[in-house]
Amino acid sequence: MSLKITNAKRIEGLDSNVWVEFTKLAADPSVVNLGQGLPDISPPVYVKEKLSKIAAIDSLNQYTRGFGHPSLVKALACLYEKFYQNQINPNKEILVTIGAYGSLFNAIQGLIDKGDEVIIIMPFYDCYEPMVRMAGATPVFIPLRSKPVDGKRWSSSDWTLDPQELASKFNSKTKAIILNTPHNPIGKVYTKEELQVIADLCIKNDTLCISDEVYEWLVYTGNKHLKIATFPGMWERTITIGSAGKTFSVTGWKLGWSIGPNHLIKHLQTVQQNSVYTCATPLQEALAQAFWIDIKRMDDPECYFNSLPKELEVKRDRMVHLLESLGLKPIVPDGGYFIIADVSLLDADLSDMKDSNEPYDYKFVKWMTKNKKLSAIPVSAFCNEETKLQFEKFVRFCFIKKDSTLDAAEEIIKAWIRQKS
Amino acid sequence: MSLKITNAKRIEGLDSNVWVEFTKLAADPSVVNLGQGLPDISPPVYVKEKLSKIAAIDSLNQYTRGFGHPSLVKALACLYEKFYQNQINPNKEILVTIGAYGSLFNAIQGLIDKGDEVIIIMPFYDCYEPMVRMAGATPVFIPLRSKPVDGKRWSSSDWTLDPQELASKFNSKTKAIILNTPHNPIGKVYTKEELQVIADLCIKNDTLCISDEVYEWLVYTGNKHLKIATFPGMWERTITIGSAGKTFSVTGWKLGWSIGPNHLIKHLQTVQQNSVYTCATPLQEALAQAFWIDIKRMDDPECYFNSLPKELEVKRDRMVHLLESLGLKPIVPDGGYFIIADVSLLDADLSDMKDSNEPYDYKFVKWMTKNKKLSAIPVSAFCNEETKLQFEKFVRFCFIKKDSTLDAAEEIIKAWIRQKS
Repeated sequence: MSLKITNAKRIEGLDSNVWVEFTKLAADPSVVNLGQGLPDISPPVYVKEKLSKIAAIDSLNQYTRGFGHPSLVKALACLYEKFYQNQINPNKEILVTIGAYGSLFNAIQGLIDKGDEVIIIMPFYDCYEPMVRMAGATPVFIPLRSKPVDGKRWSSSDWTLDPQELASKFNSKTKAIILNTPHNPIGKVYTKEELQVIADLCIKNDTLCISDEVYEWLVYTGNKHLKIATFPGMWERTITIGSAGKTFSVTGWKLGWSIGPNHLIKHLQTVQQNSVYTCATPLQEALAQAFWIDIKRMDDPECYFNSLPKELEVKRDRMVHLLESLGLKPIVPDGGYFIIADVSLLDADLSDMKDSNEPYDYKFVKWMTKNKKLSAIPVSAFCNEETKLQFEKFVRFCFIKKDSTLDAAEEIIKAWIRQKS
Repeated sequence: MSLKITNAKRIEGLDSNVWVEFTKLAADPSVVNLGQGLPDISPPVYVKEKLSKIAAIDSLNQYTRGFGHPSLVKALACLYEKFYQNQINPNKEILVTIGAYGSLFNAIQGLIDKGDEVIIIMPFYDCYEPMVRMAGATPVFIPLRSKPVDGKRWSSSDWTLDPQELASKFNSKTKAIILNTPHNPIGKVYTKEELQVIADLCIKNDTLCISDEVYEWLVYTGNKHLKIATFPGMWERTITIGSAGKTFSVTGWKLGWSIGPNHLIKHLQTVQQNSVYTCATPLQEALAQAFWIDIKRMDDPECYFNSLPKELEVKRDRMVHLLESLGLKPIVPDGGYFIIADVSLLDADLSDMKDSNEPYDYKFVKWMTKNKKLSAIPVSAFCNEETKLQFEKFVRFCFIKKDSTLDAAEEIIKAWIRQKS
């Protein structure tokens, strides 16, 4: 290979990806896939119907405004104004992106420089780290830690940041902190007090906050999703990220958005116009029309923002019982559609899993996929290289699955229990 | 504004964009828009119908493979194998991207480093320059030049590169050259001899070639589109870029693809998995199904790859006559769906166009949009800052427009002629 036919340095070492590897594994149709966060429940009928109808309209198959289709940014402004104290300018304070992923990328490329530091809370959605590294910046990690729990269920709310440890991570190089609430993979919904600690540190240290809130509607009884951008002094320094895929169970649409003050959003817009320019028009128009249906009935239990978490809470509880029946102590999530559990209690015999350098959970998931035909995602994929050990006993199960999928998982687990006893 | 709430250096000065500015101008519904390259003809019925049907299928609204939906990369491999000497591995040698724009971005971010030089042929599709700058590299410009033509029509083929001048642009820092054939905005279709000159220089200087071939099907009588990747020694160093938007007249779908050897494509994949991860599933599946219809009838005049250029050639000829009737000497394009003309011959009175620092063509287009209700795109937008003067008398008209739009343009031009005489 000639010297010049090589990759750019910015992507050096960023080529491995948990989804590429584990999605391939789970592609076997005989495997019950509780891995990737991919709903197999039906998206709302009206969402699909809107797209079907829009596909027939010539002009909606052509380019639209680069920073967001006009009817979509209008719907988003109308929706989110209900949660922010201020009005939102649809053209200047919203950017529609290629999924929340695209929002994260635009924010990081637009705002983070070589030499900057970015605080990332562990475990973390796996793209945060390579995105920060691709920008030439240094990720600074802090773990969520759990106090031991005895005699009661382990909850995602048991996992907290140590305020002093968090404060110690900030310094003059800290450009941003990436927050994720509700949290993937733990399912933690940050409380007002917890968010206030983060907000205070951001303000004190003049730091940006990139708040990944893609599971914002998916919070369970007793919990409330709060937006850190609505805390005093935070709007001006926060990019809040949402997702059509998570909101309407259409992950394949790859639409997301960033909301924030124009002095930040304009830099994300610059990245967008020099990377993808615009998002797909028919999907944006269909999404806008779907939003209007639910914006008009937000207090109604039928509103998808209300009905989906109700539906998922039942599935969450079912997964809790299932994992408990297997002898595990799952961490009961307050939000999101994942549940994690320490699987080392199962004492699986992983001796014939080849790659001995892999973390325990990687080997376990490969073993379970092969021997039990059940797939999941190793939680150490959500950690950096040095701290994988802290989480390598955990695996993540996705429960936004139709009952027949959960039935199949239950069958597998029941057979597994019989085999064990 | 605090010091830390600022943009990353990589996007400094990259915030202006011709499309943002001129699309806004042309949004007035009373304006006949021959500006942005946006078809107002109907896309093929089967393309729209495929999307309508697919929207109803649950699983096709969820995530698919990140580097390209399996059925789409299979269709693309089958299609392009007809043009390359070698078989194409659908998973390793193809990457589906957010439009051709996304392919350009992935290629440049994946392969171009700070300190590298990238040769760009002027005029150029406007994103090439900021994308190269965002990668920290230096664009090196070379113009297409035209010999004077007397007594005959001016053709896009009169615009050529000076081989010695081109050779002088290569040096040890040259990482890549960006080629665009058929060319936007001139409409030039590079000949075998011209491509051989470029290929020889790439090989001699161990340089990559990023070949933007989005108008590959749109070549007119007497011309043939050739792929530089098929020239000896070029496959291993070329990324060839195509577009669903241009192929099927659905620019709003924002799907494109890169084809090349795995040792290059894998780096583009790394950028994709750290920027957008995957493209929209329903659009990819609809595109795959549309491709199969036309792949099976490629020798048939009904095949859209054959019928669209036939339809456009008539529109091109109509635009040539229209512009000639106005007293202009348009450059007759051999490919693509744009035609450019030196508008300074019209002696328009631009004295009341405010911003006197703007290039002539910017002022002219704004004047024409305001006073004639006809929009176009200034060609100096396709030049770098220093060389805008070389092209500032030209404006670009888009002719992938239905007859009623061209009729309306004709009315405007006829009235303009009457006013002049």
